[in-house]
Amino acid sequence: MFDSLTIQSHKGPYTASFSDETPASFGRSATGKTHVIVDQKVLGLHTERLKKLTDSPSVLCLESTEENKSLERFPSYVEHLVKNKVQRGDVLLAIGGGIIQDITCFLAATLLRGLDWDFLPTTLLAQTDSCIGSKSSINAAGAKNLLGTFTPPRSIQISTVFLKTLASAELQSGVGEMIKVHAIDGPESLAALEKDYNLLFTDPAVMLHYIRRSLLIKQKLIEKDEFDKGIRNILNYGHSFGHAIEATTYYAVPHGIAVTMGMSFANYVAMKLGRISEAKYAALKPLLDKNSRGFGEVEIPLDGFLQALAKDKKNTGSNLALILLDPEFRPVKTQVPNDEAFRQICSQYLQSQRGRE
Amino acid sequence: MFDSLTIQSHKGPYTASFSDETPASFGRSATGKTHVIVDQKVLGLHTERLKKLTDSPSVLCLESTEENKSLERFPSYVEHLVKNKVQRGDVLLAIGGGIIQDITCFLAATLLRGLDWDFLPTTLLAQTDSCIGSKSSINAAGAKNLLGTFTPPRSIQISTVFLKTLASAELQSGVGEMIKVHAIDGPESLAALEKDYNLLFTDPAVMLHYIRRSLLIKQKLIEKDEFDKGIRNILNYGHSFGHAIEATTYYAVPHGIAVTMGMSFANYVAMKLGRISEAKYAALKPLLDKNSRGFGEVEIPLDGFLQALAKDKKNTGSNLALILLDPEFRPVKTQVPNDEAFRQICSQYLQSQRGRE
Repeated sequence: MFDSLTIQSHKGPYTASFSDETPASFGRSATGKTHVIVDQKVLGLHTERLKKLTDSPSVLCLESTEENKSLERFPSYVEHLVKNKVQRGDVLLAIGGGIIQDITCFLAATLLRGLDWDFLPTTLLAQTDSCIGSKSSINAAGAKNLLGTFTPPRSIQISTVFLKTLASAELQSGVGEMIKVHAIDGPESLAALEKDYNLLFTDPAVMLHYIRRSLLIKQKLIEKDEFDKGIRNILNYGHSFGHAIEATTYYAVPHGIAVTMGMSFANYVAMKLGRISEAKYAALKPLLDKNSRGFGEVEIPLDGFLQALAKDKKNTGSNLALILLDPEFRPVKTQVPNDEAFRQICSQYLQSQRGRE
Repeated sequence: MFDSLTIQSHKGPYTASFSDETPASFGRSATGKTHVIVDQKVLGLHTERLKKLTDSPSVLCLESTEENKSLERFPSYVEHLVKNKVQRGDVLLAIGGGIIQDITCFLAATLLRGLDWDFLPTTLLAQTDSCIGSKSSINAAGAKNLLGTFTPPRSIQISTVFLKTLASAELQSGVGEMIKVHAIDGPESLAALEKDYNLLFTDPAVMLHYIRRSLLIKQKLIEKDEFDKGIRNILNYGHSFGHAIEATTYYAVPHGIAVTMGMSFANYVAMKLGRISEAKYAALKPLLDKNSRGFGEVEIPLDGFLQALAKDKKNTGSNLALILLDPEFRPVKTQVPNDEAFRQICSQYLQSQRGRE
């Protein structure tokens, strides 16, 4: 239906393929066993569909919770794999969303100094964004995403059949990351997505088209800067603000929706700092408000928000490292003093600018 | 005194420098803090000498035990670093032997998706062998060295001042790895080391010469095969047998001495399999017996030994993957069936061939 993508990485090339059907089996290694790590809910909803892929004596079935991707839980995963005689040459297969991806990727990165892993992403967030780019993110000592590695999978199969069982908010969440990369790609890309926005939720072919386009845009950046030392940073557009919104609402706002809100917030800051015009800010706002629907009333306390923002991994020293649009509407990493003026801007945004649809 | 070495790795080049004096400070990053991870015993023995290097608000002082390099302990290390506000741009400094190296290397590999680390190795094993080559090895779920990564340090400073406080067995242990790489390098190299063997324990300049030579021999292999997919395997000469000896004696035999014993054991197997002559086996034995002194009476139970050997990480399928000398006395990876004949050979070795000095 759509050509697969081949992404270059420091571990060699890997592929992402696209389909609207039940996924086929992944290639197995000649000598190795496959250890499946699968989301409990997904397995329940798609038992028959996944029967062939989960036909292994080694299946680890997990709930996709933040606790389960904490370092504290990893000894039990390792114990499970040791009981199932994990050896060099074995392969891990992740079936689920970003949390199952994080767990599997970190295990593959560290077990026996590196195993191959395959990925069947089942959330739109994972399909449209996290499945490529090599990153894993693990919680530890109460800090979110503090540990991680760059360890790409061997292959990825993306199928829209799994999107049918997602809630609307979960689809919006994935679309948030789509909006982000289309905004990075430029005004024309974003306009096309805005025009087709409603179709995303009703037409799987349109959805698959934009999933593939989103990965293509991301691919250009991660192939230039896999280890996130430079240009790849701009993929964090909306994320410093988004992560702070997630943290201070105790994750009541799904990731991609928090990123959507975060882009609007970042645009407001850019406007107040004189980087973009009021007109540009206003032009970008309707799509972002639309994709935040259902979450306009969630309380975002200013103090908690600012404290969370100050903890962002990108910060070095005392400045905030924010990704803000520049006068040509390109997101760029910008050092912003964490001062009273910045606090005022954030306070104004939270009081008067949030999309209440 | 000796030129430093520059080793190429997938993370770029890194250096090892040599001295018989108190080590100088490591370069700090412009923006980052240094977090010191130091062996408790070393800090006690060399407090004054290490004063400048450990002058940081963030010092984690640990006992070098196997428990402390288990995954189960890592959340507490991460908590310590988070309390000390670890950020991108910070550097970890490891001061100690292989266990402190493993802990620091694994933290550097995974924290914030990768921090730089520096290394001051204080054991002969770490100075002459483990400090280069990128590997970390972490215990988990009761299995030794099950997790790990390839993450070289930024720089290494090797100083013989720390060797003065080591026990003789700890020196022998390091010399075991020296013997191994000199055997790999060829009969002339090994003969030179054998001739100077006694001087190693009395003359720091001779010791430093052989430390540097050992790293040079290892460097050639790890630069060709950093990720241990091929030729680097031969650095495991003596190690399958050695690890099994360590495991079945509950680590009563220090690593490099177990490797020394393991080389003699491997040579016996190679001789019985018709790969090398009895004369060659006998010619290699005296140096290996000499470097095993003090441990000839430690009981090595056959069943426990064979069980441990069957668990080696290098094994795939049901064969044992052993590094054995070939007819040209080059160690090569060899598949050996784990059968009754092999058991008989091992039984004979343990009953009649161990060095009793």
